[in-house]
Amino acid sequence: MTTASAGPNHLERRDRLRSRLRELGCDAALVTDLLNVRYLTGFTGSNAALLLSADTADVLSTDGRYTEQAAAEAPGIEILVERRCADALLARASTTNRAAVAFEAHHVTVEDHRSWSTDHGLITLSELGQAVEDLRRVKDPYELAQLREACAVGDRALAALVQTLEVGQTERAIARRLESLMLDLGGDALSFETIVAAGANSSIPHHQPTDRAVERGDFLKLDFGAEVGGYHADMTRTLVVGAEPADWQRETYDLVARSQAAGRAALAPGVDVRVVDHAARSVIEEAGLGDCFPHGLGHGVGLQIHEEPFMGSGGTGTLEAGNPVTVEPGVYHPGRGGVRIEDTLVVTHGVPELLTMTTKEMLVVGT
Amino acid sequence: MTTASAGPNHLERRDRLRSRLRELGCDAALVTDLLNVRYLTGFTGSNAALLLSADTADVLSTDGRYTEQAAAEAPGIEILVERRCADALLARASTTNRAAVAFEAHHVTVEDHRSWSTDHGLITLSELGQAVEDLRRVKDPYELAQLREACAVGDRALAALVQTLEVGQTERAIARRLESLMLDLGGDALSFETIVAAGANSSIPHHQPTDRAVERGDFLKLDFGAEVGGYHADMTRTLVVGAEPADWQRETYDLVARSQAAGRAALAPGVDVRVVDHAARSVIEEAGLGDCFPHGLGHGVGLQIHEEPFMGSGGTGTLEAGNPVTVEPGVYHPGRGGVRIEDTLVVTHGVPELLTMTTKEMLVVGT
Repeated sequence: MTTASAGPNHLERRDRLRSRLRELGCDAALVTDLLNVRYLTGFTGSNAALLLSADTADVLSTDGRYTEQAAAEAPGIEILVERRCADALLARASTTNRAAVAFEAHHVTVEDHRSWSTDHGLITLSELGQAVEDLRRVKDPYELAQLREACAVGDRALAALVQTLEVGQTERAIARRLESLMLDLGGDALSFETIVAAGANSSIPHHQPTDRAVERGDFLKLDFGAEVGGYHADMTRTLVVGAEPADWQRETYDLVARSQAAGRAALAPGVDVRVVDHAARSVIEEAGLGDCFPHGLGHGVGLQIHEEPFMGSGGTGTLEAGNPVTVEPGVYHPGRGGVRIEDTLVVTHGVPELLTMTTKEMLVVGT
Repeated sequence: MTTASAGPNHLERRDRLRSRLRELGCDAALVTDLLNVRYLTGFTGSNAALLLSADTADVLSTDGRYTEQAAAEAPGIEILVERRCADALLARASTTNRAAVAFEAHHVTVEDHRSWSTDHGLITLSELGQAVEDLRRVKDPYELAQLREACAVGDRALAALVQTLEVGQTERAIARRLESLMLDLGGDALSFETIVAAGANSSIPHHQPTDRAVERGDFLKLDFGAEVGGYHADMTRTLVVGAEPADWQRETYDLVARSQAAGRAALAPGVDVRVVDHAARSVIEEAGLGDCFPHGLGHGVGLQIHEEPFMGSGGTGTLEAGNPVTVEPGVYHPGRGGVRIEDTLVVTHGVPELLTMTTKEMLVVGT
């Protein structure tokens, strides 16, 4: 059994892609999406591409800024130092008789593809599809350990934050403090720009923090996450500050909490993503507030903050054990306020594993 | 005269693109690059596209999370709420007889382009080229005011940081403090992940901060910047901590400083970007250290931290008045240490305007 403390096995990941490549009948894959390059090699620089061969050695290309870093992060792979990485690797494929190259058509631009077709006429380009993203959907024990820790950082940061929340603090100051706590308490970086939305601003699903101060009785919606080892946590909690909640706040909160519980209960291997979305959405629709929930129920997390599987009415596919996903319904009353409650969980063959441990009871703070 | 306090005139920007569209003989442009959408409309959400018409009203599409934000940030444009923004706008173009649509071939993926060709058969797609990026190269007074302030934030943060630098502090702790200072002193966000590299790590051009502690006599390379109003500052300074510099440190520093001055002196409208690169690079090459400077001289800054014009041996084009660019030569001795000195300046018809004011004398701190 692989232990959580073991590092990722990049060669094993490449060998799984190699099997797929042979099924496609290609000589090599040109991987240009940087997160896919990272997943397959460990290299984290900002300019890179990977030529993965069906039957010979792999080559990682990056530019001169990263020569030392590439050797350290991706030991055992040949490093080709060139600024135009993909071009250099196609030239290499051409001179080593690897003529049938599969590329990432969902990542390569129309312009690059055209220049490749012109400049590397001996190569036949075909589509790799989302072969690497497909490998990335189910996380291995190393990845799940990173996500557990990333979510735990968020829990610790929120626990520290709530002890200091008061009427009069601005959204921006609260966001800064929460971000600082995440970095102090073990986060390598932030998963995304922290959302702090007070009062009427909480009705804006993706509100950016402003200098608006929290007023007595405001909803305070906090959507945030830490990144650990490249893996992204995601959690939302909605609090009430400085006063007992009004009836409409309690009703809104309870409705969202029931919807969220229904969404979590629907998570299981083999379930269509639209069925999970519907399980949560129908609770809100039955209350006559379907229009107040204008976004999907949740998404996968991993090396990206938003990745497959997407659970919304337009999503496709089914869940698998080992998918970390968010469940985050919301009800937003424009001009008045809104509630979102979001957990990150891992789909398992039993009860989903909850990674974001902070209570979902309605918290009233700063009174 | 437009004053610095005036906001950006998005309609004027769109009208300039409209003129270009007419030259191309197209009915409409589909703008999908999010920064280009922001430049043309003011909208800052994470999912959007713009249909800009040669002769009728423009339409901005975004999804349900951003309905309120789009109306607030982009007043006066029709908002079309759809998750698949580009598809929705092509459907709109189709039903309103705008058949010849120019798209951003350097941004649109091979996969999306193929699906558009299949799903919107009545539309003829042609290439817009980098028409919007071309408009963005020369900054208007509003944009320059944002950049001035962003660079001033970096100056203030560094001034506060150097008073507290000491032997024994870790790269990571210094990076955190510098980032915190930038946010405290007026930055909306960070331009990029701060680089703090001590001792031998300073020979890695794009080093990520670690738990390595600063030792007596170390080079300390700091590459950082704040973002203000969406505009990115960029500055590098290399200090010596805790001891008088060794001779090799002085020699390396002086060489890079002379190279950087030569690069700055070469900035003028009409000058080929490779000429500017060469002006700085030849100083280092004449010292026999050309191999120790493995990256380009600098780049434009704006809504992106790296944008045109790129000043390197592989760059193309000439400078124009109103281009904010970095000038950042470096000399790196692997395993030993390196120096980079970087300013952000604006090309003018006279002396370039220096935005990063911190001294380029060799600073010795923490003694």
